[in-house]
Amino acid sequence: MLLFLLVPPTTSDLDGRRVRGARTRAQILETAANLASVEGLEGLTIGRLATELGMSKSGLFAHFGSKEELQLATIGAAREIFAREVVAPAREAERGLPRLEALIAAKLRYERGEIFDGGCFFETVRGEFDSRRPGPVRDAIEADLDEWNALMLRAITSAITAGHLRADTDAEQLLYEIEALSAAATLRHQMSRDATLFARAEAAIAARLAAARA
Amino acid sequence: MLLFLLVPPTTSDLDGRRVRGARTRAQILETAANLASVEGLEGLTIGRLATELGMSKSGLFAHFGSKEELQLATIGAAREIFAREVVAPAREAERGLPRLEALIAAKLRYERGEIFDGGCFFETVRGEFDSRRPGPVRDAIEADLDEWNALMLRAITSAITAGHLRADTDAEQLLYEIEALSAAATLRHQMSRDATLFARAEAAIAARLAAARA
Repeated sequence: MLLFLLVPPTTSDLDGRRVRGARTRAQILETAANLASVEGLEGLTIGRLATELGMSKSGLFAHFGSKEELQLATIGAAREIFAREVVAPAREAERGLPRLEALIAAKLRYERGEIFDGGCFFETVRGEFDSRRPGPVRDAIEADLDEWNALMLRAITSAITAGHLRADTDAEQLLYEIEALSAAATLRHQMSRDATLFARAEAAIAARLAAARA
Repeated sequence: MLLFLLVPPTTSDLDGRRVRGARTRAQILETAANLASVEGLEGLTIGRLATELGMSKSGLFAHFGSKEELQLATIGAAREIFAREVVAPAREAERGLPRLEALIAAKLRYERGEIFDGGCFFETVRGEFDSRRPGPVRDAIEADLDEWNALMLRAITSAITAGHLRADTDAEQLLYEIEALSAAATLRHQMSRDATLFARAEAAIAARLAAARA
């Protein structure tokens, strides 16, 4: 699903200027993140994005001076979208197990492709960059994954502290299992388009949390 | 780990011919599969492979007429190596749960990078091709993944039939969980080089199988 719908170009110059004016940096980057969730960051050239947006390459160069700058800005935009669509809504749930479950449910909706066309933006770009040597783009991806893991670990620890999960729960191990069971659905869905994979992930995680319940 | 060690080129022409003679198609393809496990199949050009092998491009063209032919032959070679190193040894274990556990252990050794430098060849190339349109290369990758899943499903069903796993075990769900818990280690190991991920996968799968035990 696109996060904003581009107003189609019109023949009127005045309308054209209005349309171009509406294409803010944030909107360009939402399109870029959506495109990269499907095709990866390496395919995200200024030319490819210009075609997608119906803008001139020079117009985009005014926003982003290089491909790497565009890639880094796109990762930043995806991070903001993720924070807004996944993390913020889950914060409304009660601390402890309810918030952990809300985070998992929101992440699965996101992986199912309700936010980006390609499902999980970060899973796509992680697969693209994880075998490469460290560099600004790879480092930014790794930092975002680390941040998500730290957030999830805090939610698990908080569910243990609140007495919702057993005191002897191995939080790191539980985090590994939740992330593994959820990532497999998003990864295999890319190839098979089999939506029952997400039901399998949900059932597996629910059973795992039930086993850890205090 | 390389599956065979290339004899380094020598200055003697006679030795050189012997070395070249020893580079059979199978040996070329083992190198290709190892290279692709790290860099993917798209980076596997005839020029790149010629450099790796210290062979001439024309020498390789005699074996493989096109990049796609080379990619398909490499997938076939990886499949044979996987069958020899993972599937065949596990067949020696007793039918039922012992064989299922042997398959899982052999697959984890393979994912840990004991067979290919890049860990799981098929995980690398699946990530590379899963968002692309169907074609001979993508189809070959998907067929190999389907074949592995079918083999694992037979092993699970056989463990249920043998009375080693509970009769009410959902074989498809168990397969999903085992594959998810094992794939996450190989995928995240690519980025973090954290070897404890494989211990997490092993512990998670062992707990899952213990819960399903009859």
